[in-house]
This record gives sequence, C-alpha cells and structure tokens, in this order.
Amino acid sequence: MNAEIIAVGSEMLTPFRQDTNSLYITEKLNELGVAVDFKTIAGDRLKHLADAVRHALSRVDLLVISGGLGPTEDDLTREAVAEALGVRVKRDPELIAHLYARAAARRMTITRNNEKQADVIEGATMLPNQLGSAPGQWLDTVVGKHRKLAMLLPGPPHELKAMFEEQCLPRLREIVPKKHIATRVLKAAMIGESTADAKIAPIYTQYKDVETTILAHLGDIELRLTCAKPIPELAQTRVDELAGKIEEELEDFVYSSQGETLEQIVLYYLEMRGATLAVAESCTGGMVAERLTSVSGSSRSFTGGAVVYSNRLKTELAGVDPQLIAQYGAVSREVAVALADGIRERCGSTLGLGVTGIAGPTGGTDEKPVGLVYAAVSDADGTEWVEKRFSGDRAGVRFYASQQGLDLVRRRLM
Amino acid sequence: MNAEIIAVGSEMLTPFRQDTNSLYITEKLNELGVAVDFKTIAGDRLKHLADAVRHALSRVDLLVISGGLGPTEDDLTREAVAEALGVRVKRDPELIAHLYARAAARRMTITRNNEKQADVIEGATMLPNQLGSAPGQWLDTVVGKHRKLAMLLPGPPHELKAMFEEQCLPRLREIVPKKHIATRVLKAAMIGESTADAKIAPIYTQYKDVETTILAHLGDIELRLTCAKPIPELAQTRVDELAGKIEEELEDFVYSSQGETLEQIVLYYLEMRGATLAVAESCTGGMVAERLTSVSGSSRSFTGGAVVYSNRLKTELAGVDPQLIAQYGAVSREVAVALADGIRERCGSTLGLGVTGIAGPTGGTDEKPVGLVYAAVSDADGTEWVEKRFSGDRAGVRFYASQQGLDLVRRRLM
Repeated sequence: MNAEIIAVGSEMLTPFRQDTNSLYITEKLNELGVAVDFKTIAGDRLKHLADAVRHALSRVDLLVISGGLGPTEDDLTREAVAEALGVRVKRDPELIAHLYARAAARRMTITRNNEKQADVIEGATMLPNQLGSAPGQWLDTVVGKHRKLAMLLPGPPHELKAMFEEQCLPRLREIVPKKHIATRVLKAAMIGESTADAKIAPIYTQYKDVETTILAHLGDIELRLTCAKPIPELAQTRVDELAGKIEEELEDFVYSSQGETLEQIVLYYLEMRGATLAVAESCTGGMVAERLTSVSGSSRSFTGGAVVYSNRLKTELAGVDPQLIAQYGAVSREVAVALADGIRERCGSTLGLGVTGIAGPTGGTDEKPVGLVYAAVSDADGTEWVEKRFSGDRAGVRFYASQQGLDLVRRRLM
Repeated sequence: MNAEIIAVGSEMLTPFRQDTNSLYITEKLNELGVAVDFKTIAGDRLKHLADAVRHALSRVDLLVISGGLGPTEDDLTREAVAEALGVRVKRDPELIAHLYARAAARRMTITRNNEKQADVIEGATMLPNQLGSAPGQWLDTVVGKHRKLAMLLPGPPHELKAMFEEQCLPRLREIVPKKHIATRVLKAAMIGESTADAKIAPIYTQYKDVETTILAHLGDIELRLTCAKPIPELAQTRVDELAGKIEEELEDFVYSSQGETLEQIVLYYLEMRGATLAVAESCTGGMVAERLTSVSGSSRSFTGGAVVYSNRLKTELAGVDPQLIAQYGAVSREVAVALADGIRERCGSTLGLGVTGIAGPTGGTDEKPVGLVYAAVSDADGTEWVEKRFSGDRAGVRFYASQQGLDLVRRRLM
C-alpha cells in the first residue's frame, strides 16, 4: 500500500511558508508500514486542486489532503475532490445546525458562507472536528476497479493531528495489513558523518532487514534504526542487536540511545551525580546557557553563568587575570581554563565550563583563524581543555562551539 | 507563465527531511513574475519520477527539477526526463574526460558509475557545475505544440543556487515577459497579528495592485508588500506609499522598514548613540545574549552579561539584594529592576536589561502563573519596566520574554 500527501494552500507556494503537516502524516503512515511515494503542494484554485487529486488517485492507494476546508471562497478542497471523483457535494442540514450551535456557544455570529463547511462529498463519512469549525471527510471508494482511501483533514496542525490520530488511524489499522515496526535512535556528538559511516557501514549493511538512516546536524549525528516483522519481539531484537553493535563501535561518541538531546544528557548526568554546572561563554554568547535552560527542570543542576563578550567582563564576572589575557590573548587555552576555573569558583558550582573562540566572519588572523575554539572544564580534580578548528559561517561555528562545550562536560561526567 | 518545482529524493519522503531548495527557487521565479503553481516531491524511482515529470509538463510552462543528478544508481533524474519526453540520453565523451580530469585535480580516483553524470538528454544544453561534479541540464522544447522550459539542477543547495543564479536566470530573463516587481518588508514587535490586521486592513485593501502578506512569528510580525508594474518607478512608488501609511498606523510598533531583525535594530541604535548594553537574564537563560551575539560586530555595543538562573547568582553576578528577593520573590518587578541596575553597574555599560519570569511548564502559582514575565531597562536617567503574561509552551514563553526585553531596550533608545 502506498500513499500521497497533498497540502493545499497558496501560501505554501510562496518563498515564506512550508508544509509541515506532511512530516507528521508521513511518520504515522510509516509506522503503519505505508510508504509515502509522492508529496504535492497545490494552491487554492479549483482546476489545480482537482488535477492534483485526480492524478494522485491514479498513482497511489491512499491519499491524505490537508487544508482548504474552511469557510472562505478560497477553501475548495471539498469541491475539488468531488470533481476529481465525478460525484457531487450535498449540504447537510444537521451539520449546518451544528455550525450555528457551535458559534452560539462561543457567543460568535457567523456569516452564511460558513455553511460551506457542511458540504459532504457523495459517499464520504464526516469526521467531527473537536478543535475547530471545519469537519474532515473520509472516503473509502473505488476508482477504476481499485480500492482508494482518501481523507480530507483541516490545515491547522493541532486540528489535523487530533483528527488523524483519533479518527483516521483506528480506521486505517483495520484496513492496512498488519506490520510491527521497532525503532531505535542513537545519537553521537563531535564525530563526522563520513567518519561514523566508515566505521559502522560494515556492521549495518549486514542487517538487511533493518533500515539504517544517518541524519547529520552540526557536530551531531542521529542514527535511526527501524525494522518491520510480523512478530513484534523479532523486530525489537534485531534493532536492539544492531544498536548494541553500533554503540560498541562508536564507543563514547554515542551520548544517547533513546533519542535524548545532548543538553538533556548533560543535565541528567549532573543530577545523577548531585553536581551543578556554571558556564562562562565568550564566542557562544549565551548559547550554551540557552540550550541547557531550554530543558524544563534545568535549574536543579544548572546555576547560571556569564556571557563575557568583552575582556573587561572576563575579569569582572569570571575572575580572569587581565595579565593572562594580555599575555595569551582572549582566545587561548589559558583563558578558556581561567574562565572555567573562575566561573566555578564565583558561582560555587561543582563544575565550570569556559568557551572562547573566533566565530567570524571577521576577527581572524593567520595565527588565530576564524573557527578556532577553546573549551575547558574545571572541577575539584582539575581542568581539561580542547582546541578545535571549526569550519562554517558564524552561526555554524557558534553552534559547534556550544556542542563541543557540552560534550566536554558530558565526557568529564562519564 | 507558470511553473512547477519537483524535488527528487527518497529522503524527502521520510518524516525527517524537507525540501528547502524550492523556497529559494520560488523567490527567484516570483521576482521574474513567474508564479509557482505546484510543488512535487518524488522518490528515487524511475517510474515515479517519469510520471511526475510527464504530468508537470502537461500543466505548466516551466519546470525546475532539483536532485538526482549524482553518480549513484539512485540518481535517475536524467533518465526520467528523457523517458517523459520520449527521447534518449547520450553519453558525452568530452564530459567524461572532464569528470576524470576534475577527479585527478583533486587527487581522487572515481569509479566507472561516475560516467553517468556525462549523460546528456537529447536536445539539452549542459550546465557546468563549478562547485560539484554533477552538471545540470537546460531544455527548451515543445510538448504538444506548447513551448516548455525544463531545468535539471543538482540537489546540494550551494551548487543549485550558483547554477540557477549564473546560468538559468540570465536565460530566463531573455524568455520571460518583463515585469518590474518592487518589494518592501516592514516588521513590528509585540503586537498581535489580528490586532495589527484590524488596524491596517482598511488601508492595504485599498491598494489592489499591491500584494500584502502578513507573516506572524512569536511576538513579531512581518508585512511583505509587493507590486508588479511595467515601469519600475511606478511599482516602487506604490509600495513605498502603502508602507508609509502602514508605518503611520502601527506607529512605534514598527521597528524595521527594510527587513532587519530586532536584535540588529537594537545594536544599530546602540551604536548610533555610542551606547553599550549588558543583560541579566533569568527565565530566558541566555537567549537575549545569544540573539544579540548572533549578529556579527555585536561586540562593539554588547558587553555581555549574566545568566542568573539561581537566586545566589542574582546576588553574586548582578548585585541583587537577597532581602529584595526574599521580600518580593525572584519573579517580581523589583527584582527585574534590580537586575537591570545591578548588571549595568557591574559591567560599566550605558544600559542594563533585566528579565525574570516563569517559563514553565511547572513552577507557576495562582498569584504568579506560568508565562508571567518582568523586564526592566536601566540607564543614567532611571529605569522602566513592563509586566506581561505570555501564553504558550516553555520555548514560546522564553522567546516572547527575550523579544519583550529587546523591544524594551529599543523603545528606550528611540
């Protein structure tokens, strides 16, 4: 069984907006074992929409359409699907009554064009919308001797998700042949995609029944393992076995085997050890602190820190000796270590992290080029530091540097 | 003239990857006056790809295809386009020689499957690729009596952009009927989309020849005005006139009339006045500092600051009297003001900003609910503060709070 997703809306044909509903729908369909073979985006024009629907029904078994179900003239999905199927729409008086009742309960008056939302495609089952006014529709029909399923869902993501989850998934589970899919997500920091792939390709290529996908982000890779089997335990055993072998090969580069973020893992380790962390950031300008505090409950282990962009603040807030800066420069191993030591002492935390570097695009020299970053971690046992040279633009260097800083803390806590 | 964009690649039919090339291509085509009527995503299967190409050529004049031009078995765009057009591909010996020469210059050996990249579709012009190995192709052909343009571009965004900009745009400018399009982008902070729209809809609806698009982000709206006319000055006059009236109506909510970000504007005002800023952040946890330092050159006006997540650090790094915290609570007007004053004094900056609040999802009370945020700004003339109650999740409240803080500084500098 294969599927197509059509996202309806002229705004998604501008340079400013993207369809995101299809990512959610794809995830859910894949979990059922249904592959998405096409995605189409069409604007709010009847002719275009009907063409897209007709063509989709000629090439896939299952069609999910999002958007175009509202009350305005631009909302044409119902008419387009009816036209593509060669059937009519019929206004449902009960639904009209419901629309007016819903508006009255909200002390809103609605105009007559809202009645459009009560148009039912011949042969369709209405899908009530608990979170908005536009109901969805479910079609189980035959086109040229083939059974075709089509669902029309509202565009707002929270309405679409609720409707799909509660009303479409149970119906699909009855129809789609059963498969059991097991998934594992491993994450590794500060290892390149090609380096990691060279190490693990000889392993995962031997697991023909497990699909391995590598997603690379800045300073971070994500390995997604999925396996479909008729028996759930079999699928789980296979992904767990492969995950174990990959972890063994990538060693301590792997920081998460359940999909957690690096900042979550750092906070988890801190809490496990009853430790606290403070940071002093130069080139990352608050990014390390921002990433840590994005996690709810981070205040239990993260005390805070300083953004020491100017040399004066390196001394004032993190206690770095001005002579050290004069002698070695603000971007140096010595200053990184002094930042880590200084902020730990000032904040009374168990660990201190210092990050300093040249984010660019200007400010680099032959000796200290753009992308040069020092990170240091300090605790009661002493300090350790790393020197790295990252490539990329300002945003990229800053993210790498924050990732390196967090990873250094993680390794210290391991 | 209308267009379709086909993005080729099975990875874009997973829940993890989105096509982004189409946003760039849409922007460039719109600038030429060409509307994008459809976008399609198809996987690496010959039958699917050929179907998508054939259907696109039946409904649009201009087709842009990205991806599927590499050397692997999965790279099928050339074959698919040839099949859709009913023509053949021919391996070009000169191009083969070029591929081997390119590899040799990079001290790389390449396998024979690379020769695929020298396959030229009958009737196509090759588009050299300065940044990668896969050349593009340009087709100017006739399908069923209609002139059709198709361009095959490589998937990596930097290769695609360079090739489109340097080789496709000049060709398109010769062919596409000339239109002059003027654009203005206004941005406003801390005003809701519906509030803003209620104020300005009576104005922009009178400019039928200017297209007005409102894009809403958290605490930020963007108004995009575009107008197409045969004479450039006419188009410019119309958008400028409308932009002027909108600015007048939205008053000081508008912070940018050329598309700059709020952090860029704050830094610009600081530099104009020879002033410096330091920040003390509690609930935003470094986000204000991170946003400011994301701008290159920010070190000229932003000295740094403190992330004072714990009460101890509010005192230690920003000099807040512990009694004040005990009396009014860490989330209070009094502590926000003390943070702004304290960090200004500690950092020796012209202005100080303090932000404190409850980001959630836990930690709220009846009296001080999740989303409550205080921001205060301090300078030699005194302090001012705002109290806000934001709705949304943790990430949303934090972003709103950072936006509010930056906007408070902007208004103080106006």
